[in-house]
Amino acid sequence: MTSDHDQCANRRTDDGGRRVTSPRVTLMDVAKRAGVSRTTASFVMTGRRDMRISTDAEERVRRAARELNYRPSLLARSLRTNLSQTIGLLSDVIATEVFAGEMIRGSLSTALLRDHLMFIGETEGDPEVEKRLIQSMLDRGVGGFVYASMYTRRVALSKTLRAHPVVLLNCMARLRGIPTVIPDEREAGRTAVRALLRQGHRDGIVLVGEKAPHVIAAAERLAGVEEVLAQQGTELADSIDTLWWPDSSYRAVRSYLDAGNQPSALICLNDRIAMGAYQAAQEAGLVIPDDLSVISFDDSDMASWLQPQLSSVAIPHFELGRRAVEILLMDNRPTDIQRVPMPLRERGSIGPPAVRKRTRRARAR
Amino acid sequence: MTSDHDQCANRRTDDGGRRVTSPRVTLMDVAKRAGVSRTTASFVMTGRRDMRISTDAEERVRRAARELNYRPSLLARSLRTNLSQTIGLLSDVIATEVFAGEMIRGSLSTALLRDHLMFIGETEGDPEVEKRLIQSMLDRGVGGFVYASMYTRRVALSKTLRAHPVVLLNCMARLRGIPTVIPDEREAGRTAVRALLRQGHRDGIVLVGEKAPHVIAAAERLAGVEEVLAQQGTELADSIDTLWWPDSSYRAVRSYLDAGNQPSALICLNDRIAMGAYQAAQEAGLVIPDDLSVISFDDSDMASWLQPQLSSVAIPHFELGRRAVEILLMDNRPTDIQRVPMPLRERGSIGPPAVRKRTRRARAR
Repeated sequence: MTSDHDQCANRRTDDGGRRVTSPRVTLMDVAKRAGVSRTTASFVMTGRRDMRISTDAEERVRRAARELNYRPSLLARSLRTNLSQTIGLLSDVIATEVFAGEMIRGSLSTALLRDHLMFIGETEGDPEVEKRLIQSMLDRGVGGFVYASMYTRRVALSKTLRAHPVVLLNCMARLRGIPTVIPDEREAGRTAVRALLRQGHRDGIVLVGEKAPHVIAAAERLAGVEEVLAQQGTELADSIDTLWWPDSSYRAVRSYLDAGNQPSALICLNDRIAMGAYQAAQEAGLVIPDDLSVISFDDSDMASWLQPQLSSVAIPHFELGRRAVEILLMDNRPTDIQRVPMPLRERGSIGPPAVRKRTRRARAR
Repeated sequence: MTSDHDQCANRRTDDGGRRVTSPRVTLMDVAKRAGVSRTTASFVMTGRRDMRISTDAEERVRRAARELNYRPSLLARSLRTNLSQTIGLLSDVIATEVFAGEMIRGSLSTALLRDHLMFIGETEGDPEVEKRLIQSMLDRGVGGFVYASMYTRRVALSKTLRAHPVVLLNCMARLRGIPTVIPDEREAGRTAVRALLRQGHRDGIVLVGEKAPHVIAAAERLAGVEEVLAQQGTELADSIDTLWWPDSSYRAVRSYLDAGNQPSALICLNDRIAMGAYQAAQEAGLVIPDDLSVISFDDSDMASWLQPQLSSVAIPHFELGRRAVEILLMDNRPTDIQRVPMPLRERGSIGPPAVRKRTRRARAR
């Protein structure tokens, strides 16, 4: 029985414009093409001079690298020597969608580039587990910690942790003065509504999410939205109350539309809510964005799979992880809260308001 | 400015039936309710007898635990002492959707339960980086490695790695005799087609995926499908060629349906392909599962967000990670290939074939 497997299918080809992974050209490929050993190729590419290499061989390696479009791995370039130090990443839960993966990846790759190995530990939110993990990591020479939460929240830092270099990632301490990295959710709210204003929306903008969000990322997004609308002398036309999942949002938006409401644009508090809104709009015979614009937050994979592709303000997971480790490894760690910008991914789900277009068409006649 | 945040929104409530995270009842909650110290509560709950605790206090702690439905953390119970040993998880890429997160989580939680800390390293597929990481981990007392791939493939194990205990996770070595844990993709293919056969499908089953899949997980899934159909004296009615993304699948299925074809069921090689098939079916006015059944592989989050929810054969990410570490920590590691079962998540996307139902209705008249 053949037992070979390959799921790279999921990443190999991408006509949706996201995450293309082509086979990496390795140093070995360059060496083969140049007809030299991998070591020789390595010495040429890293500019080392402690081995005698003929000008001819050097030239062949450089040409092969150009022809193959070889990009030396950042890590390989950095890791001339073994990694000398160790940091620990403590997290409450390791895994919720892509969130964990990208945040860990941002932390880890930065640690490696900065010559550090990284332990990883999952506390399950249990202070006892956390204590053991911290002690075990300290026993192994861990010099500093990134303390991460998979959902942004306030945390109480243990005494042990406070006695060591620590950076909070996606969470905030009740205590002041601890370096903290979080996404800038309020600015994300401003970004989303500005994208709609640019298209000409103004008085028909409806929020889809929790009516009185006690979830603080949501409250911040909403605050940003309301602030910008107030500056324009207007406000949200309405809000549709829903839980955070497609089916809840589908039902809520469906009955809102069935009641005869005609929003010009929906601001959905995350991509899942937007997915439910799409399903409801489709059933109501509304074409996005011709009849209804939709914008959202998170920029999960799904955003680019919907039809039309969903405009969404992205959570910069990788960047959050990267910054946390960079700050941890600084000599003078900034003790204020670092808010990482959330970039807008503008796609086909937003356009001019329907009414306006009808007016334009009428004028054209 | 309020700077509090919370994205737990994404996980707090779930009326879609997946991943409900309720606030964890901690030992501290139990202690507070019982009116004792956390230490006392801990001694009661862990059954330790090296501290004198009154029968009354013990009884109050036990009652509080019952009333609060306290589940002691597995990790906390295990970690009586500091973690004594260390393993390393080496992966080509840390992050592709939820895959990485759950596989890391399965590995990590098993390592902790077995009294081991875990280093994590990302090689970027670069042998130079891999070598440095391995050496740095060995320098820090790592006793064994899990060598993981985010997509199943054949790998060449380095000499250094072969000289130490190692388990391959989601990849296979060219060399024989190395403990290996992979998902059972061929059986997954059998599982998917059997689910359709049970509903009465037989001669109208169409595959949606690569026509001649060189991706081996896909080839295995297809082989399982064809094997079971052959046993039933039939075969796939057709196959629709597509890339691995919703928009490619959407276009392919759309033109297949536009050409007048009437499949009774689609087997999609992953959930993304199924999402595109849903979009195409909807535009063609077909109701799933009344007019068309759809089944798929992966059981990503999206499967339960589609309308109707998608039946899918799950990749057991967590279990893959868990088994790899369990095998690594065995005294006598099995050297054969461990194929982890892929369970069917049956949801609303499959039903009896349309023709058959029409016949039934006709008879009923």
